[in-house]
Amino acid sequence: MAKALPKRSENYSEWYNEIVKRADLAENSAVRGCMVIKPYGFAIWEKMQRALDGMFKATGHVNAYFPLFVPKSFLEKEEEHAEGFAKECAVVTHYRLKGDGEGGLMVDPNAKLEEELIVRPTSEAVIWNTYKNWIQSWRDLPLLINQWCNIVRWEMRTRLFLRTTEFLWQEGHTAHATEQEAIEEAERMLEVYATFAEEWIALPVVRGLKTPGERFAGAVETYCIEAIMQDGKALQAGTSHFLGQNFAKAFDVQFVNKENTLEYAWATSWGVTTRMIGALIMAHSDDNGLVLPPKLAPIQVVIVPIYKTPEDLAKISEKVNPIFEELKAAGISVKYDDDDKQRSGWKFAEYELRGVPVRLGIGMRDLENGTVEIARRDTLTKESRPLEGIDEHIKTLLDEIQQNIYDKAMTFREENTFIVDTWDEFKEQIERGGFIMAHWDGTAETEAAIKDETKATIRCIPLNSTEEAGKCVYSGKESAKRVLFARAY
Amino acid sequence: MAKALPKRSENYSEWYNEIVKRADLAENSAVRGCMVIKPYGFAIWEKMQRALDGMFKATGHVNAYFPLFVPKSFLEKEEEHAEGFAKECAVVTHYRLKGDGEGGLMVDPNAKLEEELIVRPTSEAVIWNTYKNWIQSWRDLPLLINQWCNIVRWEMRTRLFLRTTEFLWQEGHTAHATEQEAIEEAERMLEVYATFAEEWIALPVVRGLKTPGERFAGAVETYCIEAIMQDGKALQAGTSHFLGQNFAKAFDVQFVNKENTLEYAWATSWGVTTRMIGALIMAHSDDNGLVLPPKLAPIQVVIVPIYKTPEDLAKISEKVNPIFEELKAAGISVKYDDDDKQRSGWKFAEYELRGVPVRLGIGMRDLENGTVEIARRDTLTKESRPLEGIDEHIKTLLDEIQQNIYDKAMTFREENTFIVDTWDEFKEQIERGGFIMAHWDGTAETEAAIKDETKATIRCIPLNSTEEAGKCVYSGKESAKRVLFARAY
Repeated sequence: MAKALPKRSENYSEWYNEIVKRADLAENSAVRGCMVIKPYGFAIWEKMQRALDGMFKATGHVNAYFPLFVPKSFLEKEEEHAEGFAKECAVVTHYRLKGDGEGGLMVDPNAKLEEELIVRPTSEAVIWNTYKNWIQSWRDLPLLINQWCNIVRWEMRTRLFLRTTEFLWQEGHTAHATEQEAIEEAERMLEVYATFAEEWIALPVVRGLKTPGERFAGAVETYCIEAIMQDGKALQAGTSHFLGQNFAKAFDVQFVNKENTLEYAWATSWGVTTRMIGALIMAHSDDNGLVLPPKLAPIQVVIVPIYKTPEDLAKISEKVNPIFEELKAAGISVKYDDDDKQRSGWKFAEYELRGVPVRLGIGMRDLENGTVEIARRDTLTKESRPLEGIDEHIKTLLDEIQQNIYDKAMTFREENTFIVDTWDEFKEQIERGGFIMAHWDGTAETEAAIKDETKATIRCIPLNSTEEAGKCVYSGKESAKRVLFARAY
Repeated sequence: MAKALPKRSENYSEWYNEIVKRADLAENSAVRGCMVIKPYGFAIWEKMQRALDGMFKATGHVNAYFPLFVPKSFLEKEEEHAEGFAKECAVVTHYRLKGDGEGGLMVDPNAKLEEELIVRPTSEAVIWNTYKNWIQSWRDLPLLINQWCNIVRWEMRTRLFLRTTEFLWQEGHTAHATEQEAIEEAERMLEVYATFAEEWIALPVVRGLKTPGERFAGAVETYCIEAIMQDGKALQAGTSHFLGQNFAKAFDVQFVNKENTLEYAWATSWGVTTRMIGALIMAHSDDNGLVLPPKLAPIQVVIVPIYKTPEDLAKISEKVNPIFEELKAAGISVKYDDDDKQRSGWKFAEYELRGVPVRLGIGMRDLENGTVEIARRDTLTKESRPLEGIDEHIKTLLDEIQQNIYDKAMTFREENTFIVDTWDEFKEQIERGGFIMAHWDGTAETEAAIKDETKATIRCIPLNSTEEAGKCVYSGKESAKRVLFARAY
């Protein structure tokens, strides 16, 4: 028997690491800070990709591919952007190795690049340098392009899925003829992310705006979605940026507008990453292992036969096969695990650990009774049900589980969101964790002082929250609206 | 009116470049040797990916993701592999830039890596270093993993899609308990590639083995598929390698076999790249532009209204909408181009250039007659047909076009494959282009001499070709079988 998982309540961080490892999602590679996404983890990413890609296309976007390398001079063009990304990047300086004369390899000093290339930490610079040639007239706009790719940001302290030197993401880069259109686009894509988080990851999110200090380097406005994890910390699950004309100016992207005058194009960019897998794990899993929302589960239903002899297995398989085929035909991802290398008890534990939403167990007594044992991963409950009509039951059940996981996460967030009005209360609550809604005077100084004293940051200024005059929790100055504070990943 | 395309017969190379450019498939980026794959070109890649990915999964493979960077010491471990890939690679030596004091950025000399990282030119080294921890027993085998990713091989002379410093591909990496199983896997994946080339790209291919001199660096045997382009040159469209135990030995990947003794694992790797888009263009297109096989066409059917007034357009749209919906419901990718910025004549030329397989033109007279004009891109023929039942007709037509494009390419290959028995004939024929089937004495010396004198290489030793004793076309020595010679991309 494998060692039990650490408990969330005792060592949340270790609990997370062990789930990632034991559910076979990812591992650290021999390359510092880079992860290997294992097949089971990657299958979750593929499901995320497919759903998001469909949503991007439904909102008029197309995919393309831009180079991995950013010439150093491109990064220099947008000052804040350079400032934000130059500190943490992989720099290519040479284009050849040669034998070192001792059987090994060495960098060939004669193959030094004239200009260093940066492995993309994000692609605004490369893409806007390209858009320059694609945009001449308002007729060329809007340009609504997305790319799925890998990204490198040199990180000193890494954590599987949450923060790694290399990660996978999508980045949308759009160009528009008017400011209003670009703002609408940034907001539209934030809503796409929020919908995806809520309907697919079953993760309730707060939609909001970042403060100037937390904005993307080069953005005029950064929209974000923020979710709460089970340890009460916040996790930013996606961002959408209104870039104004900053990149158009840096790369001289002008177009002839309808009034026949030259104007700089308006831009947005938006991205979500493999980090969402980390959010999914941290939000829903329990002390028994991973809990997957059915819509993103690589295996939605597993059927495990319980038998002693090959003859028994044959009889069970005969009953199971039509159910298996019916579920498959209904578009459900189902696995019949008749592998005889492991016992059914071991399999039960394994699929629980891996978060498979529904498990069917079927033994000889079930055959006699025409029943099947059906276990839910989310509630850990089991019941015996007639085999007859089981496929219809499962379809409904998967929807119910998806909803229940969302509801649980929503209840958790509600129970862990606190309205705080005094500084003492703030300092106490932040130690206990959770989302804090408090007044802020709107200054960078107060924001920084709160961060220094409590490690809490302003996660966002929530959209659609009611205006409510009050006093800043730190400075006592006037405030028009509460903002969301938390410690964050 | 745009300038006409160069003719294939006059300047094949320029004709290719212009099609890539004017059909909006890709362009050179500002980053030396790297391309931007534009949305229309990328949509072809997406269709290729989806079809291939389905075929990989149907043969039991799963996807995963491994790091972009290969530590230099990993590359050194397999000697031939190091030799083959060290010469053309991007080397990361630093992990930070800093301000240069003049408003620009410079490499931070304090951020030098202890060990250089190579941007992956292929992933055998990184993956086999990982497999070491995944494989202990025969029960862990086979390991059937694929990854979709970007690759960098420093190229001095680049050509859009055909040879670029960065390209996209998939790479399968499998581990097996026996030599026989690994060979079967390499052959199975070659057959998957051949099937994909023939059924999707409509490209007939010769399946064969590479000579030792043309093998992948580190392989025991390289299988390949070779296709003929319209200028009579060969293009390698995919390779599948039987790697023996070379990488298992280099990375010490041993497992306990069924006989309970330690054994090195047996390996394969196999890949196809964005180069296939180049093959597709070169094999089928004509002097009017791109010709796309329907199965890979981003737009399979375009409907163009021919009208003078908005009222006319409204009447046409009323007729077109149900047809549009029917085609869409049948899974056909259809576009109704009612954009009023361009005239129908311009649109006709544009969709021809972009290779849309079927174009429907519908004007006021068609409305009166209940007809539609239907144009085929492959044959450039037009006919008027009743609107009634047009959707069924189109479904059949798309299949017919797919088959016709394949048949044309097959006929071209047959007409351009030559059985050659004398050296004079060989030298003459190679200047005229085409595939040459000739006897070869099996030595590396003869292979090299032929290449030196004619620039022709042995593309492959075809599988399933009949044994037929003869004399080497160059040396006159004994030969048991003809091999395929050609000049190649």
